[in-house]
Amino acid sequence: MAKKNVNILVVNDDGITAPGIKVLLEEMKKLGNVVVVAPDSPQSGMGHAITIGRPLRLDKIDLYEGVEMYKCSGTPVDCVKLAIHKIYKGKKPDICVSGINHGLNYSINVLYSGTMSAAVEGAIEGIPSIGFSLDDFSHQADFSFCRPYVLGITEQVLKNGLPKNTLLNVNFPRGEEIKGIKICRQANGSWVEEFEERTDPHNRDYFWMTGKFELNDRGEETDVFALHNGYAAVVPTQFDMTAHHAIPEINSWSFDIKDEK
Amino acid sequence: MAKKNVNILVVNDDGITAPGIKVLLEEMKKLGNVVVVAPDSPQSGMGHAITIGRPLRLDKIDLYEGVEMYKCSGTPVDCVKLAIHKIYKGKKPDICVSGINHGLNYSINVLYSGTMSAAVEGAIEGIPSIGFSLDDFSHQADFSFCRPYVLGITEQVLKNGLPKNTLLNVNFPRGEEIKGIKICRQANGSWVEEFEERTDPHNRDYFWMTGKFELNDRGEETDVFALHNGYAAVVPTQFDMTAHHAIPEINSWSFDIKDEK
Repeated sequence: MAKKNVNILVVNDDGITAPGIKVLLEEMKKLGNVVVVAPDSPQSGMGHAITIGRPLRLDKIDLYEGVEMYKCSGTPVDCVKLAIHKIYKGKKPDICVSGINHGLNYSINVLYSGTMSAAVEGAIEGIPSIGFSLDDFSHQADFSFCRPYVLGITEQVLKNGLPKNTLLNVNFPRGEEIKGIKICRQANGSWVEEFEERTDPHNRDYFWMTGKFELNDRGEETDVFALHNGYAAVVPTQFDMTAHHAIPEINSWSFDIKDEK
Repeated sequence: MAKKNVNILVVNDDGITAPGIKVLLEEMKKLGNVVVVAPDSPQSGMGHAITIGRPLRLDKIDLYEGVEMYKCSGTPVDCVKLAIHKIYKGKKPDICVSGINHGLNYSINVLYSGTMSAAVEGAIEGIPSIGFSLDDFSHQADFSFCRPYVLGITEQVLKNGLPKNTLLNVNFPRGEEIKGIKICRQANGSWVEEFEERTDPHNRDYFWMTGKFELNDRGEETDVFALHNGYAAVVPTQFDMTAHHAIPEINSWSFDIKDEK
């Protein structure tokens, strides 16, 4: 059943032993040759971090029968870079899939998420890329109902390709049934942090960061709306962060640079 | 000269002792009340990482006379979050400036840069925000010629505000003279990595990541073009990563979800 000429890179941010990446590699094995490169420890919230001040380790391991797997000491983005340059030797895979993340990456969370940043890095490298996330943080998360969606969406990307410089951010609601797929935009929202202050045994203060997401967007075409209503949310995502619409306004400013000729 | 009712948050990613942040806080002191919150060690390449698996430290220090300063054990984005919630107590500052980074953050580097991610976080919080970077990695970098630009651009942002959900990414060329300011878009490009392989004293392999930037964009309206021609490059930057133009195309796909009703 697997198409042996399709090369699939599987990455994540929860680490190589996370249940979500096992589900993802099992589904991907139905579509082609799978190589897994994942962090050796959890890397949630690492965003688009790369490792430049320390050396990186990359070690082959046998975790699941018949799958080429490597654990990496670096970030999710490091994993993608090492995979392309040290494992694929510059011959890029046909697709890069990241996840399945334990926890959602909707709205602004695309920026904090190691799962999504790995997929973004794949896209920067010109590889069709998808990040998958499920609304369940637990180690015992039930991924069964989203398996056919992971397979179906990946098949569509392999068949159609993706628009240039675009990847997909796919989030699944929790529950036994998914109503279908909605193509969405990223909802506007942000986190309201709370820092829990504690004192260590040496009498020094420290903080644990927690917070809650605040939605500032009543749109019905958002990822948050789709998820709330039981749909898988698919957001086409780009890495050009230019606010093109703002260029004319900033061009109208008169900069008064004091010692400019 | 300082307008005492203007509250200015200064952050960076090179760490609280970097020369670049000293230049930035000196210029900002001309405009208002400065609070500095910066990492206690270099955090270049940290992207939009946040610290969720470890506690955070935030300690007041006296490094420069008459400036309220804090060093933070976390990432640049953590610094912004802690500043807003623990120092400003939720009353947001009037502007957030990040840098001046030792090294450029043009093109795709906006995603890897801790300097820019701190500014992005400020913008997510609704604060007018600017990231500044100079084309000089050295500790002895000469920031003198970009000082009037830092001041002039910040004054314009304070005067005009910024379009909603937009921040500025400002990069300065190296050299004794800046020709002026160009409002640009982010150039299309990516890094071609090279991993230098070494063996440790225990006979285990490790890698150092290096690489070179590859520009895939001949546009004359890009940040890279402006910098090459001696101009300060100002890119209006957004944090909505939705590829809005791609939504209709993805909506044309027929998803074949096997066990969907």
